[in-house]
Amino acid sequence: VAVLDGEEHSPRSLDRVVFFADAVFAIAITLLVVQITVPQVADSGLRHALGEQGWQFFSFALSFAVIGNWWIAHHRVFNHVVRVNERFLWLNLLFLMSIAFLPFPTAVLGKYSSTATATILYAGSLSAVGLIAGAIWIYASSGHRLISADVDERHIRYFRLRSFIVPLVFLTSIPLALVDPSTAQYWWGLVIPLIVLVTRRHSDA
Amino acid sequence: VAVLDGEEHSPRSLDRVVFFADAVFAIAITLLVVQITVPQVADSGLRHALGEQGWQFFSFALSFAVIGNWWIAHHRVFNHVVRVNERFLWLNLLFLMSIAFLPFPTAVLGKYSSTATATILYAGSLSAVGLIAGAIWIYASSGHRLISADVDERHIRYFRLRSFIVPLVFLTSIPLALVDPSTAQYWWGLVIPLIVLVTRRHSDA
Amino acid sequence: VAVLDGEEHSPRSLDRVVFFADAVFAIAITLLVVQITVPQVADSGLRHALGEQGWQFFSFALSFAVIGNWWIAHHRVFNHVVRVNERFLWLNLLFLMSIAFLPFPTAVLGKYSSTATATILYAGSLSAVGLIAGAIWIYASSGHRLISADVDERHIRYFRLRSFIVPLVFLTSIPLALVDPSTAQYWWGLVIPLIVLVTRRHSDA
Amino acid sequence: VAVLDGEEHSPRSLDRVVFFADAVFAIAITLLVVQITVPQVADSGLRHALGEQGWQFFSFALSFAVIGNWWIAHHRVFNHVVRVNERFLWLNLLFLMSIAFLPFPTAVLGKYSSTATATILYAGSLSAVGLIAGAIWIYASSGHRLISADVDERHIRYFRLRSFIVPLVFLTSIPLALVDPSTAQYWWGLVIPLIVLVTRRHSDA
Repeated sequence: VAVLDGEEHSPRSLDRVVFFADAVFAIAITLLVVQITVPQVADSGLRHALGEQGWQFFSFALSFAVIGNWWIAHHRVFNHVVRVNERFLWLNLLFLMSIAFLPFPTAVLGKYSSTATATILYAGSLSAVGLIAGAIWIYASSGHRLISADVDERHIRYFRLRSFIVPLVFLTSIPLALVDPSTAQYWWGLVIPLIVLVTRRHSDA
Repeated sequence: VAVLDGEEHSPRSLDRVVFFADAVFAIAITLLVVQITVPQVADSGLRHALGEQGWQFFSFALSFAVIGNWWIAHHRVFNHVVRVNERFLWLNLLFLMSIAFLPFPTAVLGKYSSTATATILYAGSLSAVGLIAGAIWIYASSGHRLISADVDERHIRYFRLRSFIVPLVFLTSIPLALVDPSTAQYWWGLVIPLIVLVTRRHSDA
Repeated sequence: VAVLDGEEHSPRSLDRVVFFADAVFAIAITLLVVQITVPQVADSGLRHALGEQGWQFFSFALSFAVIGNWWIAHHRVFNHVVRVNERFLWLNLLFLMSIAFLPFPTAVLGKYSSTATATILYAGSLSAVGLIAGAIWIYASSGHRLISADVDERHIRYFRLRSFIVPLVFLTSIPLALVDPSTAQYWWGLVIPLIVLVTRRHSDA
Repeated sequence: VAVLDGEEHSPRSLDRVVFFADAVFAIAITLLVVQITVPQVADSGLRHALGEQGWQFFSFALSFAVIGNWWIAHHRVFNHVVRVNERFLWLNLLFLMSIAFLPFPTAVLGKYSSTATATILYAGSLSAVGLIAGAIWIYASSGHRLISADVDERHIRYFRLRSFIVPLVFLTSIPLALVDPSTAQYWWGLVIPLIVLVTRRHSDA
């Protein structure tokens, strides 16, 4: 498809790309609630039934935070992007596909939280999101292909480093999940201190 | 996450935040209808089956009005916001999570309208929306952190007061629901005269 | 709520209102497909099962055309609106509620096409959309309250006339449906020649 | 409806049309995931159940790519459109209807992948999208009716040619599907080399 790569797009194009991504994010994040099933029980059993759905609520909140985080990250990257080409549109679509897919592993994890399979499906899906996000940034920033000339090398490296935290944590959780799924799920919590660490080093330098 | 709080965002950022919120509101409000189940009966039983769904229609309309009201409120607040930072983005996401969650308690209330559990779930969810909305306004308006310098103190106080009407009414309905769910549901009606009262006092002053 | 009616909104407000409405329309129109059920049969029975869903496809297409038509009408009205107030925001929300509700009567009609109940539910829902749309135009155009001073009286009257075609046809179909549902459904077809007639008289004058 | 065709629309109109289309695309593409069913099995059967859903994942990815491709194509066309009229709005709605319908044949193909019926339903649906897209371009570009005067004839012809690749491949796959569904599905792969070929000839000329 190298042949498709030539044409540069107009400013309206960039707005549409940003808009389209925002809409996919908004829909994926709002669809998460549809996966929480309304209990089908007698009136007196409702409280107990809701109690049993604890994991569904937790995985709703977790995936909301995760998708929200990627939305903010997309935001941060696109603040620097000044032009798009067709290959970039396709990379962006691939990224959105990985985002739009997330309600499914979320629902599976909500229902089968104690299994290795559901844990690995979730970890694998999030790693895919992270790897594609990293690839987009590398593509856009290499030789300032699509980003503003103002962005300095240090900032580019910081974004690269930051993009690989999520795949790193989630991929390494996969072997853990084979041994014990709930250990793997605690492991995911590492994402937060690692991001704080990388961000702080960047701010200090 | 104090370390994330430094960076100020560009005007396009603010537009994207507003847009993203609008999209989440639009989707949550439109998804409410999906929770109304299509009856599975013989042709002759359809009229009766629809009649039995009365509460589903009522809770659809109620939640539409509630989400619509929050959308208008969000609107009103963002008319004064002139810059955003990362902490504000996260508060905004938390607010949107509470909005996106509403179709679930709506569906539960539609199906189990006479139970204390469904009434409390609904009241609790709406209180959470209101408390987060109040927190956002306090964060954005303290020392004019993110809002325009034009907004005067009296207006800031009015918005603060107004944000706490919904949590006040809905939190106080929770003990009532334990005694009698339908009394608690009538109690919710207090929101309207209280808002009119607060708004009138503000306009008169 | 007269007290809420004072404040005029900024241009960004109008953009958000238009945007929000477009999003609700887009979601309602796209959700229609979710109501078409995927058959659960043996492989060999698929063709027959799809054949039996004929009415579901028809009501999908009908409602798509209907919602699309209202979107174009909303478009046409908002081309003339130059300011909004809080009462108008609520009227607009009421209108959007009637639009967002449409996937439900569509699904019921798709499943119970030969019943008077489903036919009346559909006709009543569309009449409600039309009456609210008419009310919005009357509110916005009276004394040029919210519309541009450029719009002449003849154009205002034409839009008023036009808004009442849908409620007229659909309300009159309700007594017909009690006698024979399919006659009522053919009656709906009157909408098209009536709109052409009114539009032509307006263009000629 | 020729009578409706007179009025030209303002720039805001064009923005709304583009926006509305983007929203429908975003929703249709994100709804695809809702069609992937969460397995209802014992914990130990989850891995096997997910394995059996292979075709659902494949048809999710395929339809994501297909809708994404049409979004990019819509993009490309609308970069040249400078005005809209009511007939064009309706053609655009018809196009969006064919897009919004796609989650249904996708779900059917995901569930009944080995049947001729599902294969033909999918091929027919995609052909319809392609034919309508072609018709829109012909309508907009004839005599530069709605497109910028800058667009040269060679570019117009290239877009016409390109629009008919998808219908050509998918319509010719229908007789193949009657003989052997999986051959028809491989046949669809022809789309990619044909697009590359047409694009390359256009770039070289």
